[in-house]
Amino acid sequence: MSDHPETPVVPVEAFEPPYYVAVFTAVRTPDQSGYGETDARMEELVRNIPGYLGMDYAQSPGGLAITVGYFRDAEALTAWRTDIEHRAAQRRGRAEWYQRYSLHVAKVERSHGFVRAEAPQG
Amino acid sequence: MSDHPETPVVPVEAFEPPYYVAVFTAVRTPDQSGYGETDARMEELVRNIPGYLGMDYAQSPGGLAITVGYFRDAEALTAWRTDIEHRAAQRRGRAEWYQRYSLHVAKVERSHGFVRAEAPQG
Repeated sequence: MSDHPETPVVPVEAFEPPYYVAVFTAVRTPDQSGYGETDARMEELVRNIPGYLGMDYAQSPGGLAITVGYFRDAEALTAWRTDIEHRAAQRRGRAEWYQRYSLHVAKVERSHGFVRAEAPQG
Repeated sequence: MSDHPETPVVPVEAFEPPYYVAVFTAVRTPDQSGYGETDARMEELVRNIPGYLGMDYAQSPGGLAITVGYFRDAEALTAWRTDIEHRAAQRRGRAEWYQRYSLHVAKVERSHGFVRAEAPQG
């Protein structure tokens, strides 16, 4: 979820269905104290969930933040949803960091990827 | 998908499942000529699809762009996927605007929304 400007940005690939996406769309509050540390810790935790496939993140300046988490199956999602530290972070998010959010958990039925052919170097 | 900084940003709500999400994650090419006009036209077209529920969009500066479209049912998605103008725009996108992208089409099984209680004005 953190930006790493030194590495090229690559969206999470289109896997073979079925798999799950958790789409989290949020507007943040002005006070984001502590958010960065918690976000980094959550990223560390979710990577240890068996069946975790990846995460996409984008935020328009001053606007909407979208996080999409990808999971192999419902069990992986349940492990993440019920993680104790994750639940504590969610409570803190509602108390401090989020003005509003929506969460949509969905089973992928169809996927497709595109990568541009490399242009010849000239 | 255009930004309207004068209106407050609000994520698309969590509807009662089932409904569909189309998650499109993209890295753009440097040359975006014509993109804005086509994007505005696509937004106009998709709003006319029966069963279209809304669209969330975020782009990190210089980074990933995420678009999430929400649709009531598979028929609405099919109508949008097979729209002639939309298909032409997709071809142009692959030829000109996108470095790489992934598309994940998924049926929502669970959703949840949060809105912060208004703080008293003081």
